[in-house]
Amino acid sequence: MLENKNNAKTDISELGEFGLIDHLTKNFKIQQKTTIKGIGDDAAVLGSEEKQVVVTTDLLVEGVHFDLSYMPLKHLGYKAVIVNLSDVYAMNAEATQITVSIAVSNRFPVEALEELYDGIAAAASLYKIDVVGGDTTSSTSGLIISITAIGRASKDSLVYRDGAKENDLLVVTGDVGAAYLGLQVLEREKKVFEVNPNSQPDLDAYTYLIERQLKPEARKDVSKLLSELEVKATSMIDISDGLSSEIIHLCKNSKVGCNLYEDKIPLDPQVVSTCEEFKMDSTTIALSGGEDYELLFTVKQEDFPKIKANPNFSIIGHMTDENEGMHLITRDNSKIPLIARGWNSLSEE
Amino acid sequence: MLENKNNAKTDISELGEFGLIDHLTKNFKIQQKTTIKGIGDDAAVLGSEEKQVVVTTDLLVEGVHFDLSYMPLKHLGYKAVIVNLSDVYAMNAEATQITVSIAVSNRFPVEALEELYDGIAAAASLYKIDVVGGDTTSSTSGLIISITAIGRASKDSLVYRDGAKENDLLVVTGDVGAAYLGLQVLEREKKVFEVNPNSQPDLDAYTYLIERQLKPEARKDVSKLLSELEVKATSMIDISDGLSSEIIHLCKNSKVGCNLYEDKIPLDPQVVSTCEEFKMDSTTIALSGGEDYELLFTVKQEDFPKIKANPNFSIIGHMTDENEGMHLITRDNSKIPLIARGWNSLSEE
Repeated sequence: MLENKNNAKTDISELGEFGLIDHLTKNFKIQQKTTIKGIGDDAAVLGSEEKQVVVTTDLLVEGVHFDLSYMPLKHLGYKAVIVNLSDVYAMNAEATQITVSIAVSNRFPVEALEELYDGIAAAASLYKIDVVGGDTTSSTSGLIISITAIGRASKDSLVYRDGAKENDLLVVTGDVGAAYLGLQVLEREKKVFEVNPNSQPDLDAYTYLIERQLKPEARKDVSKLLSELEVKATSMIDISDGLSSEIIHLCKNSKVGCNLYEDKIPLDPQVVSTCEEFKMDSTTIALSGGEDYELLFTVKQEDFPKIKANPNFSIIGHMTDENEGMHLITRDNSKIPLIARGWNSLSEE
Repeated sequence: MLENKNNAKTDISELGEFGLIDHLTKNFKIQQKTTIKGIGDDAAVLGSEEKQVVVTTDLLVEGVHFDLSYMPLKHLGYKAVIVNLSDVYAMNAEATQITVSIAVSNRFPVEALEELYDGIAAAASLYKIDVVGGDTTSSTSGLIISITAIGRASKDSLVYRDGAKENDLLVVTGDVGAAYLGLQVLEREKKVFEVNPNSQPDLDAYTYLIERQLKPEARKDVSKLLSELEVKATSMIDISDGLSSEIIHLCKNSKVGCNLYEDKIPLDPQVVSTCEEFKMDSTTIALSGGEDYELLFTVKQEDFPKIKANPNFSIIGHMTDENEGMHLITRDNSKIPLIARGWNSLSEE
């Protein structure tokens, strides 16, 4: 009746998540003088004063982003906060507030939501952020969590995705690939459990991997670490979709190329041993795994001495001229083009 | 396996939407000095400077908040923005930016999302706000839209829910009840259409009602109007859940009572005629209808001369001592306690 049926049909998966956002938002024009940075970085930047406001938002959908059969609700609440804080820290800003909206179906009793909010409160307490608003509504199926995180930073300390220059060093915090492997372990155990509900899983060999998947942390410390070292990152992004995908984001936004060295990628011993057990290539896992919530950033080459000995940081490559492209330099010195095969909720359908 | 099943089961509907939010967030403590106002008003207020930041968020779920069989996607996008801007205006602040997150199932082609974003863009353009971020992901069923709106106001111009005093006048903008009746008309036409897909509905008698439901506007103008009249509202809220529910919010937050006069409630002639046709009581519709997105506010009694002749405002009552309670004074001078029977997505299930 009043519905205007459009005849053209383009499947969403043809565009992919990033393509879809770009496509849908390409006509939005900036009208407010307080909008310093809109769509296109880890967070938007607002305000015309010396102290600017950073805003970022994420939507988590049951069955797409999490599976409650192995994700306890408290952990889910915690992780939902972390995912957003990570985006604020990736701007080199301080996270200060969040809003939390949830849609839930009737199958969740209040006690289940209490567990979820216990996790949210635990993260808020540890990261010293305030929950300042939100919305609670019903859903026809499943649980949906939408969190918006707000942060602050002085204008000069903000780090965007587009500041990397040729010859800058590419640096990653912590190690990568563990969260994805943790998910593989949990999914395997779920299948075992479905076949034999009495099986007692021995997960000792995977504790780090499972913790990275179920209770990740955001790198609140990096801003302070860099400041103490008197290093200003030239570009920064958080690793939510996999190292490879994030490097490509930095390169495209900064209009540079990149050489990434396979032997420099930091891997936890459990990642190496579990990859062997699962017959997976650890470099592929590191490049495409995602959900590590480490920070990836670039620094000027002259900062090499300040960064190299710090146990929090691994120098994994350097930026090149844009025309040289983005490559992985393998252990046997082959040069392979980097491609984004990161975790992508839309293309997985 | 890893899931921790909690045995206690309290059905969400036992708490209701507001009860649930209160219950889940009661233990959250404010830790940031930049959190001026957290949960409990139309929007949160952030910042320690003279210019403060206002943040509000809403989640719209298909099948709960909207029905795509009579809500064109473009209108839905428009309305989703309006709902949030209304909360910013209810703080007497200027709306400046929004983030938009959507979760969609595969049944939506890209063209459908383009329509949705066309509506978002139309609202953004008309209200001069920027879309600065968001998230796009898949959903296992239906469409979910989460919007966060950000605004700014000088510290002194912000109006909260808790500032009403005894003897203050209660004022509403525009008229109320039309949006809810518009929904009733659309639902009736949907049923007719299901029985006879060839029927041509004659909606001429309901144009205003349908427009209020499908393309509501937010009262961006009120802040300027009040400023020109040199009136500072003492408390303010937007009408999303129905006049009665919002009056109760103002009273409870401000710790006052209220007398609302039935004969003063502003109704459009289409509301009156359609209520007669539908055999509904127009006062009940005005009190409990919801989705009008008008503003409800209080002013000092001395501002009466400035407000009374303005066609944008209707003085509908006055605040009393808290112990006197909240009442509707009917046309025949009976005194009936006000109750919140507003549209409540959780208790409706």
